[in-house]
Amino acid sequence: MEIPPVVIDRLPLYARALSMLEAREREVVSSQELGTRLDVTPAQIRKDLSYFGRFGKQGRGYNVRKLLDELHRILGLDKQWRMALVGVGKLGRAILDYQGFAPQGFRIVEAFDTDPKRIGEQISNLTVKNVEDLQRVLSQNPVDVGIVAVPAEIAQDIIDALIKCGVRAILNYAPIATRVPPGIQMKRIEPVLALQSMTYYIKNAGRPAASARS
Amino acid sequence: MEIPPVVIDRLPLYARALSMLEAREREVVSSQELGTRLDVTPAQIRKDLSYFGRFGKQGRGYNVRKLLDELHRILGLDKQWRMALVGVGKLGRAILDYQGFAPQGFRIVEAFDTDPKRIGEQISNLTVKNVEDLQRVLSQNPVDVGIVAVPAEIAQDIIDALIKCGVRAILNYAPIATRVPPGIQMKRIEPVLALQSMTYYIKNAGRPAASARS
Repeated sequence: MEIPPVVIDRLPLYARALSMLEAREREVVSSQELGTRLDVTPAQIRKDLSYFGRFGKQGRGYNVRKLLDELHRILGLDKQWRMALVGVGKLGRAILDYQGFAPQGFRIVEAFDTDPKRIGEQISNLTVKNVEDLQRVLSQNPVDVGIVAVPAEIAQDIIDALIKCGVRAILNYAPIATRVPPGIQMKRIEPVLALQSMTYYIKNAGRPAASARS
Repeated sequence: MEIPPVVIDRLPLYARALSMLEAREREVVSSQELGTRLDVTPAQIRKDLSYFGRFGKQGRGYNVRKLLDELHRILGLDKQWRMALVGVGKLGRAILDYQGFAPQGFRIVEAFDTDPKRIGEQISNLTVKNVEDLQRVLSQNPVDVGIVAVPAEIAQDIIDALIKCGVRAILNYAPIATRVPPGIQMKRIEPVLALQSMTYYIKNAGRPAASARS
């Protein structure tokens, strides 16, 4: 059975909420409480989870640890994932610095750039390699995920090259529409989309700062 | 009528798809086609839009330009939005460099840091100011959105300070759970969540790179 992508996108949110509950030693949680924390209806949570089997007992809620383990298994978060970063400009360096990947099992094991001034540089225990050597390097040291932090003009070429090297998931920071073939996953980091839904809520509060666009 | 946040979150996606169609001079689009482009059911699109009135005629599809104008008005994207950035480390500099904000009406008009070495520095036409002067600076030059690119340890303090200055929306890059009071919008940029739903799709393809976590 094909599971809708929006369902898959919600599972990490469920896992995160359950992790927080587990950290506070909670043993059981209702779909009602989980829903309130995540702004999702309890019916939606029950429906989403029903794709993967039967969890929890009617009226008794979910066992936090068991459901969390199960979600980790479903999502593949019980594994270590290896990533290659392409682009070590300002953004790429910020990504290498990012403290959120490692605790969740994601590790950047290679970094590439096109700029001769950056190639050979040591950043965060990695030596920056030449993008021209992508194929050779990744055949010896394969990765699961490619992180794209290059200028918009070359983003598609870099994505194509990573996929040629066997990378099956792309985390794309380039502010441009790009394509991947079927079977390849891509998620874009899109700060503008996040801003655009917040403006709905703040647009009518009448701050002097917001002026009509002409 | 209270409109569910998930509906509001989908509107920018609809607007983006319509912009692309408009750029290709398409005049009409069906909910079917829009749905296929966005991986949302046509029924969902019709239901989402029905919160805001009647768009399109039965069996005739939506007028691209009219629906796009309407979504821009609903979301407040026909306005210019002013933003203040706090934190001009690697990530903050990458955000200042980001080319995606301005074309959508979002402009960073102030930048702050706590580091004396950075205060006074000129970056992208802005002079970095002292976070201690946040209140004074933003009372003279008010902003709608605060962008938080500071270390996790001080993220909550910075968010609290921005809200005290009248900021009503926070774009939060700090990798940590933070709180805002009711009525204040916050979106987190979360690369890990994006990775965690992609692993679902790639976990079973058996790359040698993914090894069991022990």
